[in-house]
Formats: sequence, structure tokens, C-alpha cells
Amino acid sequence: MIKYKFIKAQLAKTNKKNDENYVITRIWHRLDNENIKFVTQQYVIREDGKYALTDMFFPQLNLHIEIDEGYHQSTIQNERDRFRERDIISVTNHEIKRIDVTKGIKEVHEQIHEIVDYINEKVKKMGNDFIPWDVEKEYSPDTYIKKGEIRLSDNVAFKTIKDVTNVFGHNYKGYQKGGAIHPYYDDVLLWFPKLFPNGEWDNSISPDGTLIRERNEHEHKRDEHINRVIQNKKHKRIVFAKVKGPLGHIMYKFKGEFKLDITDSIKNRCLIWKRVSVTVKTFPHKKIS
Amino acid sequence: MIKYKFIKAQLAKTNKKNDENYVITRIWHRLDNENIKFVTQQYVIREDGKYALTDMFFPQLNLHIEIDEGYHQSTIQNERDRFRERDIISVTNHEIKRIDVTKGIKEVHEQIHEIVDYINEKVKKMGNDFIPWDVEKEYSPDTYIKKGEIRLSDNVAFKTIKDVTNVFGHNYKGYQKGGAIHPYYDDVLLWFPKLFPNGEWDNSISPDGTLIRERNEHEHKRDEHINRVIQNKKHKRIVFAKVKGPLGHIMYKFKGEFKLDITDSIKNRCLIWKRVSVTVKTFPHKKIS
Repeated sequence: MIKYKFIKAQLAKTNKKNDENYVITRIWHRLDNENIKFVTQQYVIREDGKYALTDMFFPQLNLHIEIDEGYHQSTIQNERDRFRERDIISVTNHEIKRIDVTKGIKEVHEQIHEIVDYINEKVKKMGNDFIPWDVEKEYSPDTYIKKGEIRLSDNVAFKTIKDVTNVFGHNYKGYQKGGAIHPYYDDVLLWFPKLFPNGEWDNSISPDGTLIRERNEHEHKRDEHINRVIQNKKHKRIVFAKVKGPLGHIMYKFKGEFKLDITDSIKNRCLIWKRVSVTVKTFPHKKIS
Repeated sequence: MIKYKFIKAQLAKTNKKNDENYVITRIWHRLDNENIKFVTQQYVIREDGKYALTDMFFPQLNLHIEIDEGYHQSTIQNERDRFRERDIISVTNHEIKRIDVTKGIKEVHEQIHEIVDYINEKVKKMGNDFIPWDVEKEYSPDTYIKKGEIRLSDNVAFKTIKDVTNVFGHNYKGYQKGGAIHPYYDDVLLWFPKLFPNGEWDNSISPDGTLIRERNEHEHKRDEHINRVIQNKKHKRIVFAKVKGPLGHIMYKFKGEFKLDITDSIKNRCLIWKRVSVTVKTFPHKKIS
């Protein structure tokens, strides 16, 4: 039921865009494989730092489909504001396939046929690395506790901060702060930032996802903030950024483990966090004594 | 190109109706047969005289698909006005299949799978009676001149009055009147009426399509009109009703050959035309001497 709702909502996003609706529904129905997840109109950031939307994204395959309607689809620079709260995926190392819909029905079908074959082949080649899409389990902390780790390439997101903390050994019924201690590591903070200017903070992440810049918006608070974090000794952060997911719900999206670069932070007068790992360990509930 | 446009426009009509869009695109893409024509949101008149819309209509198969979203879809009595100009199809002798979308994705897929199998089987059984959908030819007079006849069950429509007249032996470049002589039969008129109240005339066709009632809206002209037609001796009419087609374009839709019932006409004080044939002969161009 949930999967059907999710898929229908994805397809509905392409409404009023006839070519998109036609191509995306055809890829989906020809694939005819409920284990493959897709998201339409995925917000992406390109290697050149420019934002864009891809028409159909397969998270398990890191594959994007772009529908080429014949006119130049410009990068959406001016709509940056609309993008900033979104779950923006870096397309570094992702594959992008294009479908030209300016020809007749046979040519369109032929191209889709090739892409469907390509996807089926890719899923087959992945073998056990292909995790079938389970819409009930993908947001559940238990899934990742059992797995023992969270990988960046798995596109992991949770629905609440509480869920994030519990993946690392907490047992909260609710949790609202912007950070939490790591029950197992003294030098690690679990961090749930908005990675865009948001009133108190002016945070950002680099297009390739390897560097986070954290800065207090208020000039007079800036140095105090930098000094406090440097002296605090929790110089590693496991980052789950607050974003709006594909259907507009809030999600906390895994971005990797980051380490404070003290020299760069002082030089830039803002905290510079550099990604040190794309994989983090998960833990069952630990009773903190 | 034209077929692709037509199909996209059909699918686009189901926008914002997620279940419809999902089911209709799946049926179409799973069928994967460009020879099968479909129309979404077909206006129909039921045997009880009530109007309705069916979600997907296959004219070659006289088969309708209705998507059951769980709440009662009432007959659209109040929206009669929106319907009256439309290409309204009588569903007498048509088949209607339902798809229940209130369950999960597997159940929906299973039902669609059965319908797709059913359609494929039906097309196969029809053999040569199944005419592959040719979007370029279906509105062309030549197609029907070559065939030698027009059948009601073929859902024939033309884009202009000129095209209708030329199917019966005329050779007009343009023609605008509401009727034309038949080049081969003295007692037959080619008639292109609006079968709904339209200012000058208050015409209607019965739900089963077998009876047309023609009445002048103006009380003082009524008797003169009836007498003139009775004395004119052209007591047969081949009827192509003016309607709005599936994408909103004007079309002239074949309704059969009708014969004036003089007794009933006098009794009812309006012309009563009764269908006498669902097939009419077509003719190549005849030079009228």
C-alpha cells in the first residue's frame, strides 16, 4: 500500500508534462520490478556546483534519466532558493542516460527498451549488492542497526532526529536538539544541521559533498562559537542534514563523517568540516551508565 | 509522430488523478501494441439514458476500463451540459471491466496483468476483423472509400463536412451546410446535425442510438418544417453528428442511416428518425451531370 502510494505520487509529479509522464511511466511499467526504487524530479548538484533536476533517479543504481524534449533545459540557477532545503544529491560518479522524445513513437519506445534492458542487466550484475526496495524498512533504524553500518552510497535518510540517534545506540522516544552525543565515541557528535542559510546559521556543503562550512550569521557570536567548538574536543561529526524528501516530507539525510580542520577554520573564520568517511558504524541500544 | 502526440494527450488527461494515471499508463505500456487505439475519459450514455465517463476505452474492441477508487462514482447528471456537445458513445453491447485500486501494488498489478492478457487474447481472436490503428488513415475519406462501407461499430468520424460528403461520391474542396444530397440515391440526404439543443434546433438521439428527434425550437416554424420534410421525399438520412472528439476537436461522427417515421412525426409534432441501418455504402467520386 505504501509502495503503491509512493510510486503514484512520483508519477503524479510529472503531471502536465506529457513527455515526462509518458517516458517515466513506460520505463517503470516495462521494468515491471517492484524491487527497483525510483524518484522523479530529483534535485542534484553537478560537479561544477550548478543545481539541476533530473527526470527519473534510481537510487540503488546511481542512475539518472533525462528526457530531452528538444529545447535547451537550462540549469536552474535562479531557483536556488527553492532547491536549498531539498535533498540535493551530488551526481559525481553517477550515470546519466538521455531519452530523445522529439521523434516518433517507435524511436521513443526503442530508446526506452534499451534503457530497460540496461537497468535489468545492471541489477543482475550487482548480485547481492542490489538491495531490493523495501519501502517499510528503508526508513527504519532497525534496518541499519542490523546491517551494522550506514554507507553514503545507500542514500540513507531517517524521518526523525530520534531515529538517527537510536541508530547509534540511543533509545530516545523523542529528541529535538541540533546535535547529540555519540554513546560509543567521546570525540564524535551526531549532528543534524540545515546545510543552507537559515537565520541563525549560514551553513553550506560543497558540490561534491566533501566539505561543510558552518558559520554563525551574527558577526559578534562568530569567534566565540569557533573557539568553543575547538576547545570542546568533539572534533568529529556524523552528519544527517535536514532536508525535504521527494514528496516534501522532512528527512535527515546521511552525509558522511566529518572532521574539524582547525587551521582552515581559523583562517576562514568559520568552522570547516572535512569528510573523513563515507561509512559509519551503527550500534544497538546501549544503556549509558 | 501524430500517434505519439495523440497517446500522450490521452494520458495527460488523467493528470492529477494518480490512480487513473497509474493504471492507464500500465495497461498501455504492458500491452505494448501500437496497433491498439485507446481513448481516456470517454463520454458514454448508458442503457438507462444516464451519462457517464469511462476511464479508458478501446474503440476497436468496444471495451471500457473503469477504475474503482473505492468511493461511489455517481452518474454525472448535473453535468449534462458539459456532455451534450461531446462524442457520446452508447455502451449498449460494450464490455466494461473494472479495476479495484484500493488494495496494494501487487493486487493492482495482478488485475492489470489479467486485463492485458484478456485484451491480447481478444485481438488475437478477432483475426482479420481487428483493424490495426492507423492514426493517419482513420480520419481519411480514402480509407473508407477503399473499404466500400462504413460500419457503426468502427467508430468512424471525419474532421470536416467536406470529408463526409466526399466519402459518398462528392468532390468538394469545402462544404458548410447542414446537409447534402447523396450523389447516388435520390431519397437520401447526408445530414450533419448537432444532436443537442443548439438555438435553432432542439435535437436529440436516444441512449441506444436508434432514434433521433428533430424539432425546431421556434413554435411558429415547427409545423412548416415537418410538412416540408414530409413532402420533400428525401425520407432517409445518413447521419454524421457534429461532436467534440477526445481531444476537443470538432468531428462528424457516423450514427447510422435513419428513416423518417411519418406517423410518429405527426403524432409527436417533431420529426422522428428511426435507424434502419448500421452500415452504409461509400462511393468513389462521381461527376454529377
